[in-house]
Amino acid sequence: MKSNAHLYAVILAGGSGTRFWPLSRHLYPKQLLRIIGDETLIQQTMRRVLRCIPPEQVLISTTPAQADSIRYQLGEWKDAIQGNFVIEPEGRNTAPAIALVAAELVRRDPRAIMLVLPADHVVQGDRRFQAAVALGAQLAAQGRLVTFGIPPIRPETGYGYIHPQRKVRLGSKGGLTGYAVARFVEKPDAKTAVRYLKSGRYYWNSGMFLWQASTILEEIAQHQPDLGAALKPIGQALQSGSIERLARVYRKLAPVSIDHGVMERSDRAAVIPVDFLWSDVGNWSSLEEVAVRDKAGNVVSGNVVDLGSRESILYADRRLIATIGLSGMVVVDTPDATLVCPKDRSQDVKAVVEILKKQGAPEHLEHRTVFRPWGSYTVLEEGKGYKVKRVSVNPGGRLSLQLHHQRSEHWVVIAGVARVTCGRRRFDLAVGQSTAIPKETQHRLENPRSEQLHIIEVQNGLYLGEDDIVRFQDDYGRNVKGRRREGK
Amino acid sequence: MKSNAHLYAVILAGGSGTRFWPLSRHLYPKQLLRIIGDETLIQQTMRRVLRCIPPEQVLISTTPAQADSIRYQLGEWKDAIQGNFVIEPEGRNTAPAIALVAAELVRRDPRAIMLVLPADHVVQGDRRFQAAVALGAQLAAQGRLVTFGIPPIRPETGYGYIHPQRKVRLGSKGGLTGYAVARFVEKPDAKTAVRYLKSGRYYWNSGMFLWQASTILEEIAQHQPDLGAALKPIGQALQSGSIERLARVYRKLAPVSIDHGVMERSDRAAVIPVDFLWSDVGNWSSLEEVAVRDKAGNVVSGNVVDLGSRESILYADRRLIATIGLSGMVVVDTPDATLVCPKDRSQDVKAVVEILKKQGAPEHLEHRTVFRPWGSYTVLEEGKGYKVKRVSVNPGGRLSLQLHHQRSEHWVVIAGVARVTCGRRRFDLAVGQSTAIPKETQHRLENPRSEQLHIIEVQNGLYLGEDDIVRFQDDYGRNVKGRRREGK
Repeated sequence: MKSNAHLYAVILAGGSGTRFWPLSRHLYPKQLLRIIGDETLIQQTMRRVLRCIPPEQVLISTTPAQADSIRYQLGEWKDAIQGNFVIEPEGRNTAPAIALVAAELVRRDPRAIMLVLPADHVVQGDRRFQAAVALGAQLAAQGRLVTFGIPPIRPETGYGYIHPQRKVRLGSKGGLTGYAVARFVEKPDAKTAVRYLKSGRYYWNSGMFLWQASTILEEIAQHQPDLGAALKPIGQALQSGSIERLARVYRKLAPVSIDHGVMERSDRAAVIPVDFLWSDVGNWSSLEEVAVRDKAGNVVSGNVVDLGSRESILYADRRLIATIGLSGMVVVDTPDATLVCPKDRSQDVKAVVEILKKQGAPEHLEHRTVFRPWGSYTVLEEGKGYKVKRVSVNPGGRLSLQLHHQRSEHWVVIAGVARVTCGRRRFDLAVGQSTAIPKETQHRLENPRSEQLHIIEVQNGLYLGEDDIVRFQDDYGRNVKGRRREGK
Repeated sequence: MKSNAHLYAVILAGGSGTRFWPLSRHLYPKQLLRIIGDETLIQQTMRRVLRCIPPEQVLISTTPAQADSIRYQLGEWKDAIQGNFVIEPEGRNTAPAIALVAAELVRRDPRAIMLVLPADHVVQGDRRFQAAVALGAQLAAQGRLVTFGIPPIRPETGYGYIHPQRKVRLGSKGGLTGYAVARFVEKPDAKTAVRYLKSGRYYWNSGMFLWQASTILEEIAQHQPDLGAALKPIGQALQSGSIERLARVYRKLAPVSIDHGVMERSDRAAVIPVDFLWSDVGNWSSLEEVAVRDKAGNVVSGNVVDLGSRESILYADRRLIATIGLSGMVVVDTPDATLVCPKDRSQDVKAVVEILKKQGAPEHLEHRTVFRPWGSYTVLEEGKGYKVKRVSVNPGGRLSLQLHHQRSEHWVVIAGVARVTCGRRRFDLAVGQSTAIPKETQHRLENPRSEQLHIIEVQNGLYLGEDDIVRFQDDYGRNVKGRRREGK
């Protein structure tokens, strides 16, 4: 496919999603997970997009809480996408997120066509995906709002359905045809869903779209006038680069989905029935549709020793899971939590997460590994008066210049070279060297080399919360000379 | 009960037992586990014994691999039992183990009566247990080999059964009666087991015994002449205190159980049908007989969040286990491994352990926490070129004076006070202080205080095996000035 100079991709990566707990967390949602294959869902989405669009033209729509983790996972393309993060101050469903990116795109390129893709779906069949995008771009240039219709494979009641107006053929290409949309049907009842499935005339709404940025902005203005009215201040806030200003506009927006808020109301909607494999992998049991299964029907990943299980989903990490004679079960292990449930109870994982949230259990919120703009840290152990972390600093990265009132820290380098600032001293430490940072002392850790730096940090103190931090300088624009909840 | 001055207890604590994996390990068997209640099985056994016998008269029969862990768990009585460990060079089933202790007891007290108890059984009903021991001691004094007969509650085919000779009443006390034994039946077939259960005339052989040390030695000499012939060299080796000498004698002994080797052949056997609750808790599913169950029939322990499971055994530790809608399942979590299986497959845990053994996986052998005579250590993380441990040193304890060829170590004190020897320097470190031990440097860590010392140790080096150690002095009689596999 010849690249279209005005074609941009927008990866929607703001979702939270608790249905893949314990692998997903409130601050570490599904798109960041290696659920199927060697790459995470957002990495796979990125690679898919790059078959049609150069990385400089890929925009990422996300929230502040997830931006660091996403930058880390898309590190391979970091120079190209550096300026392409569109950070929503907070999640407001898809219509505001899309409006925000469309406003940004129009500012960059008034003729921009945008391919909108959720970061956490699975698509198999890259060539067919490319063909669909090629035809979609053609229809978008005609002023259409293009959806990709997925042939249903079960009477699903959780999706929206699209009924094409077969008589209105908008174009054909690569074996695919685009139609005008007769109507959208939101989440039908079970009987209706069976009828749709049998009829062969309805398609699932996949949540992937293609349109001109200017077209969707017009349609938003028409069908969501409040959001439309906010477009101008949103544009101004974007140009000012002030996230606080953007937050003030955003706070007033009602959450609304692009499907319900615009697509169902527009007379410019089009659908291209596609022929690639698609899944929104909504919970653990849906993995079976897309993952490779062994002879006994199991989906197995990681350090698993199994005796005779079948039709089960067994997800380990580095820790060992031993399973015997399971049937139709889900077992998922992470460094701090394990889930065991029958496959047909997968949807109840949400209820577990709610319980954990009420209990204030950290296992609902984040993993033991937390990503920061400079790298990441993993809590190895916490106990009374101490905490042990492995801290990993990216090449050229450095933590803020900071001090702690309540704790001292010891650093031992286990890989790479650490450049340490401690009070007025500045020095480098190689593997096997160490230093102590007394409390109430300004300090900084940085990685001056081109390979990753890893240290073990032992904290001592009566209070070890991440909010005991005073920042004096920070490369990543985070609050300085004040206390914040988010550490390092 | 009035204490009998010649009554001793012998706790048999040499077993390995893999059927409670992953909680049990080859080097950390069932007796050391907190399976039911707040104490481990060996601690419960000790406490039970102390209702009849003072701690100075309790002997522990075990192997070198387990002695440190047992001393740690019985720390409450450490002064009283200090000299009461009878260490078998290697396991040879129960007859040699009992012969060894009996020989030791006769040496101490020619009139010794010995109550023999496996360390890893559950007994509920301490007063009735005491009553049984009181009657048993009376029969033992008459020269009897006393067994305690358990009324069967199911047609078990895995146990031995005892048929009392009802006409030969040997004595009565506290509502119990002792009889001569008509015959022993080893592991009957299912049909026979059902008949025995219905008849009400057979009892399970519980593996607990009571006899005079001199009586059992005579019977061993009569029915196991090879073992009998070894008794003299065993006695000499014991007196010499040389474990190498004992090992040379022991190596030639055939493994044989006291039940099969002596009890079934002796005409001095007696049985006291007892009325306390007994279980040898042979595998995870047998827990149900003795553990407290919730309303849904679950046995739950540790950090478990459950939604609607029933009749399941859910064992967590500090990590979180979330379970939804399980029925008749076993889920057991430990810091490095998790087991999930249906209850009726509990016996297949052995097969998993065999697989792990063949793979050389460390999870079959030991836990991440390993006990040593001076305390314990826990591996927090291992990676390329580094290892992080939490090391815990008992009050007054000290590691050997040692050096490592391949690794440097960093120590950060997180609780207590560390006395450090490093080369020619000797100094104390308080909480929050640290030091570095270069490789090829003699060093020692000790705890000079009366509270526990905890440090975080970070090791750096290309080779980090526990066998990179040269010992120069050791308080616990372990090999010095040589390399050994067993570290610290």
